[in-house]
Amino acid sequence: MKILAIDSSGLTVSAAVLEDDLLTAEYTVNYKKTHSQTLMPMLDAIRDVTELDLSTIDAIAVAAGPGSFTGLRIGSATAKGLGLALQRPIIPVPTIDGLAYQMYGTDKLVCPILDARRNQVYTGLYEFVRKGTDSPAVYTLHALQAQCAAPIEEIVRSCNMHGREVMFLGDGVPVFAEILASLLQVPYCFAPAHRRMQSAAAVAVYAGVLYRQGNYESARDHKPQYLRLSQAERERLEKEGEL
Amino acid sequence: MKILAIDSSGLTVSAAVLEDDLLTAEYTVNYKKTHSQTLMPMLDAIRDVTELDLSTIDAIAVAAGPGSFTGLRIGSATAKGLGLALQRPIIPVPTIDGLAYQMYGTDKLVCPILDARRNQVYTGLYEFVRKGTDSPAVYTLHALQAQCAAPIEEIVRSCNMHGREVMFLGDGVPVFAEILASLLQVPYCFAPAHRRMQSAAAVAVYAGVLYRQGNYESARDHKPQYLRLSQAERERLEKEGEL
Repeated sequence: MKILAIDSSGLTVSAAVLEDDLLTAEYTVNYKKTHSQTLMPMLDAIRDVTELDLSTIDAIAVAAGPGSFTGLRIGSATAKGLGLALQRPIIPVPTIDGLAYQMYGTDKLVCPILDARRNQVYTGLYEFVRKGTDSPAVYTLHALQAQCAAPIEEIVRSCNMHGREVMFLGDGVPVFAEILASLLQVPYCFAPAHRRMQSAAAVAVYAGVLYRQGNYESARDHKPQYLRLSQAERERLEKEGEL
Repeated sequence: MKILAIDSSGLTVSAAVLEDDLLTAEYTVNYKKTHSQTLMPMLDAIRDVTELDLSTIDAIAVAAGPGSFTGLRIGSATAKGLGLALQRPIIPVPTIDGLAYQMYGTDKLVCPILDARRNQVYTGLYEFVRKGTDSPAVYTLHALQAQCAAPIEEIVRSCNMHGREVMFLGDGVPVFAEILASLLQVPYCFAPAHRRMQSAAAVAVYAGVLYRQGNYESARDHKPQYLRLSQAERERLEKEGEL
């Protein structure tokens, strides 16, 4: 099975191709340019260097939210365009789950934090659970707290409750490092730079898991999950007195 | 500090740029094309998309062996060329250490295995040791068995000795999966596809650690560490009766 994966949900823009159990390409950029300018040339570059015939792709995976509203729209629009043109399904990967999958197999709790502004983070709390006792072991991503938008204090409370070492990752790490230091009562660490941000490679691999569970949809039906109202929607409702 | 990293030691060819604690780009391809055809265009692509001024790079990191002889020569020649032109040092990253660094922070033992043919693997056995007790925790890569060329049975013996779960990664995983299943007496697992092969991002981050320890050299002095004789050298010595 061949999966083309896209993640443009945050500061990074990332594309990858997974063929069965082999990652044939990954291209990730974290630079000021808007993802609308970089994503398509990156996909083109991958297609050229791996001589990829797009018609051989079985599904398109996309980090489907939460995240930057503009970033999510760029990712989902690109995935929908490809899916409609190629008549292939879309595997929507919850952004925070995809980010947690970077740390596959760790014994620590995994807590992605994306800066959602307005004193909130997009976050969740995960562990990897060993399936059965056979070797080679296979680990399943299990959410102790499903992805959500919440104040940083709330996810810290969840972390403290579990009493286990937590690995934090995501663009919220430098933003909230001081708050974490002052509130956390459990041991913790930060993912290293090469595993800290969104990566389409992790999205592709986790998308394979989701696909086998039947979690995919038509390109026509796909839309990103913002988890919150956009600024424009919020302001309109505030004006109309409905918030 | 800005590090440009290259890993062309195996089946993948990979380039990355690390700026202080931020990975600004990673591009990895695992496709039949020879690395000599792909590495330079990949570096060009990264330079363009991140508007990278090569003169702002402080050091060039390269996976310096062991690995494919041709691959190592391509990586080291490219690193030397850049280092000489830019007058910047080279940080030689032992290939197997760099591969192990993919799994930063894991509690499992990490055992990279690269198929070295002739019934050998390039391998090593590592653990991540927590520095002190402060949070956020920082982990140091510690070799229980330094990188070497050895029969697969020998590294399996080391794994069995330590009695801890081992995570295997590298291109040797599919090649030696049956042998591992028959000989291992400890629990084990395989790294997922997005973390299984060499990555210049991990090389870049580990190169930063090595640089701070003073482990770098001039571009003129740099050469890859093959760990074994090349086929041509071996055949010549065999002909001359010296092997």
